[in-house]
Amino acid sequence: MYNSIDIITKKREGKNLDENEIKYIIEEYMRSNLKDYQMSAFLMASFINGLNKKETRSLTKAMYSSGDGYDFSDIEGEKVDKHSTGGVGDKVSFVLSPLLAVLGYINPMMAGRGLGFTGGTIDKLESLEGYNPEMSSDKIKTILDKEGAVIFSQSEKIAPADKKLYSLRDVTGTVESIPLITASIVSKKMAEDISCIVYDIKCGNGAFMKHLEEAEKLAEWLVDVTEAVGIKAKAVISDMNQVLGYFAGNALELYEVFNFLNGSMEVQDLKKISIQLAYELVSEYETIEEKKFIKKCEDLIYKGKVYDKFYHILRESNVKKESIDKIEKGEFINKVFEIRSKQEGRIIEMNTRNMGKIVHMLGGGRSKLNENINHNVGLKICKKLNEEVAIGDVLAKIYYEDEFNKKRAIDLLNSSIKIGEKYEKKTFIYKVI
Amino acid sequence: MYNSIDIITKKREGKNLDENEIKYIIEEYMRSNLKDYQMSAFLMASFINGLNKKETRSLTKAMYSSGDGYDFSDIEGEKVDKHSTGGVGDKVSFVLSPLLAVLGYINPMMAGRGLGFTGGTIDKLESLEGYNPEMSSDKIKTILDKEGAVIFSQSEKIAPADKKLYSLRDVTGTVESIPLITASIVSKKMAEDISCIVYDIKCGNGAFMKHLEEAEKLAEWLVDVTEAVGIKAKAVISDMNQVLGYFAGNALELYEVFNFLNGSMEVQDLKKISIQLAYELVSEYETIEEKKFIKKCEDLIYKGKVYDKFYHILRESNVKKESIDKIEKGEFINKVFEIRSKQEGRIIEMNTRNMGKIVHMLGGGRSKLNENINHNVGLKICKKLNEEVAIGDVLAKIYYEDEFNKKRAIDLLNSSIKIGEKYEKKTFIYKVI
Repeated sequence: MYNSIDIITKKREGKNLDENEIKYIIEEYMRSNLKDYQMSAFLMASFINGLNKKETRSLTKAMYSSGDGYDFSDIEGEKVDKHSTGGVGDKVSFVLSPLLAVLGYINPMMAGRGLGFTGGTIDKLESLEGYNPEMSSDKIKTILDKEGAVIFSQSEKIAPADKKLYSLRDVTGTVESIPLITASIVSKKMAEDISCIVYDIKCGNGAFMKHLEEAEKLAEWLVDVTEAVGIKAKAVISDMNQVLGYFAGNALELYEVFNFLNGSMEVQDLKKISIQLAYELVSEYETIEEKKFIKKCEDLIYKGKVYDKFYHILRESNVKKESIDKIEKGEFINKVFEIRSKQEGRIIEMNTRNMGKIVHMLGGGRSKLNENINHNVGLKICKKLNEEVAIGDVLAKIYYEDEFNKKRAIDLLNSSIKIGEKYEKKTFIYKVI
Repeated sequence: MYNSIDIITKKREGKNLDENEIKYIIEEYMRSNLKDYQMSAFLMASFINGLNKKETRSLTKAMYSSGDGYDFSDIEGEKVDKHSTGGVGDKVSFVLSPLLAVLGYINPMMAGRGLGFTGGTIDKLESLEGYNPEMSSDKIKTILDKEGAVIFSQSEKIAPADKKLYSLRDVTGTVESIPLITASIVSKKMAEDISCIVYDIKCGNGAFMKHLEEAEKLAEWLVDVTEAVGIKAKAVISDMNQVLGYFAGNALELYEVFNFLNGSMEVQDLKKISIQLAYELVSEYETIEEKKFIKKCEDLIYKGKVYDKFYHILRESNVKKESIDKIEKGEFINKVFEIRSKQEGRIIEMNTRNMGKIVHMLGGGRSKLNENINHNVGLKICKKLNEEVAIGDVLAKIYYEDEFNKKRAIDLLNSSIKIGEKYEKKTFIYKVI
């Protein structure tokens, strides 16, 4: 028989816990026999003394087992997914998900809402009238079967232990632990009934991981623990020292995606990372030359195939035709303020976290769960890193509704873009693990 | 402005906290703004990463300041006290407190109840009819003024933060931390308005500290932190590898003390440690030669001065005359079972913790706060370590009321006394710090 205090004490002493001990402590927590104050002591001990990969695998499995999982075995095809660690202007899902479907893969994409300075995929989709992220298992299967991809929100039944633990970590100073972050992510991915996942690890001043070493460590843990629970995994570490693409904000990001996919806008970094992530997944199943694959995907995008697929997925998800049209045409845009350069040179730094905060400031983000957000506000970065700038050039645009928020946003934006002489160019894709 | 999560995080990262940060976190906890689950994370971080002596001093002060303190400034004389870390058969307070009073010192002795395998001073005194440990401040002052010593229980108003923290530590695997133990003890001693304290640190298989190094460490921390809050302090580390004296059990220990003080019984170890502790206190105020002091104390005991003082203190504490008489004569004793030796040799080991458990088993201890206990049960050790034993000699006696408990007690007692050939004699008093 196990005893919770003994297990907490064991971890406090830096000893390794076995699978059954970890299972027991999570089960006891979900049965409310183990109290929050005991779990937070356990989490703190795990944070400081660490959990090794075997323990993290056990924790992941225990958290997954606290809830239900989807069963997509009826649907033919390889089921794959992507998970991003979050950045500013991260709209990759809207390109990658339909692209994977066009390539013949099945992508059940369970996504979340935003909190703090990063936006959430579900929030962005909710800019579209009719979209309801809370889909029944049958609804998800129907869309997957017909279109090959669907984006839906995590139900209450998926890894409830993760939700309970995350809320506790948030208020006990135990968030930034690689093993705990890994278990949280992987436990949810286990529920998706997928055979392969690629992790989109963002690294830089607009991401949770600021340094490459941290990003590499997280990537390695995610890949190892995911494979240990029986799902193939890869990770791509890419730069998040500027907004991905040009826009940040809910409807604005969809506006950008629609116009990128319909051929009206070129968005290099968005295209590059989306295709790279697709390649990492597809190359697990097919022998393909990378360059050829990139060409193939670009063609699919240019020919409008990915746009069409995205359109159909959205329509199947109950999104209204007119709403897509409205966002594609930017008809939701209210007031715009242009920020112009007072000096010449080139963009040498962009405080990307501040860009996320500006969207938040304008009303487009939330500080607490269940807070309402304004889908129509946000910003556009008109000059990306290393671009030359003349006096009077538009550096950025602010899409706002409220004058007071606008002023604060302008101040923060002005202090967040640095113009100088020389920019040391960085790679966009740092590493594939 | 401070933020609790930042403070928890700082300790998680192993950084040192300043006085105001520690004060803030304790105040927030007492205001219930900081929740149990946050405090337990803080305690675990403090346990693993440690608190240094400066931080422990801050914690001690913050815990003391959560409640009230006594003010004995009206009473003339040096106010001193003793605190024991707890052992089995520890009846030192009943000898030391009146001895100090006879020596002209003032001893306001705030004591506690027992939990687990050790008994509590207050529980023992409650064997006496009429004794009420919950004394008003005025009552305490009156007795102190008249008799020079009084034993009373800690009121709810003394260091309430300690009580709240202790309950939490008990269920979160954060008990055995030297800094946390130190803060808990010293915060309460601060409330006694004393100028000097001696710590009676028990070490051995019947104490919380099993090894000398741990005991030394705790002694050093207690002395340093106590002095840092402005109270002179000393510590005596003594052996607890056997029951102190001969008896363990509530009324039985008082029975032993009365008969030791009235001259009917000789109890070497009890006498030795009591006088040693008195010496450590008194030598802080007077220049005296140790040997002379010991002789003086022995004389006071032999002449019945200490008995008389104890008697008067008890009478002032509302204890009935007949009740003292009854206990002194052993008239409370119900059924006795003698355990006899089946082999010859000498006593080489005594599992002292088990002796405490036996008292508990017989009904004389409690597992939970507020549990009722039986004051009349317990045990007597008839042969101490290194004493020679012949077959048929009485090794120990069990004072019981219930037959079922008796049987379990006999079994445990039999397995807790080891008879062998050779005993390596240990010192009784290891060290004075």
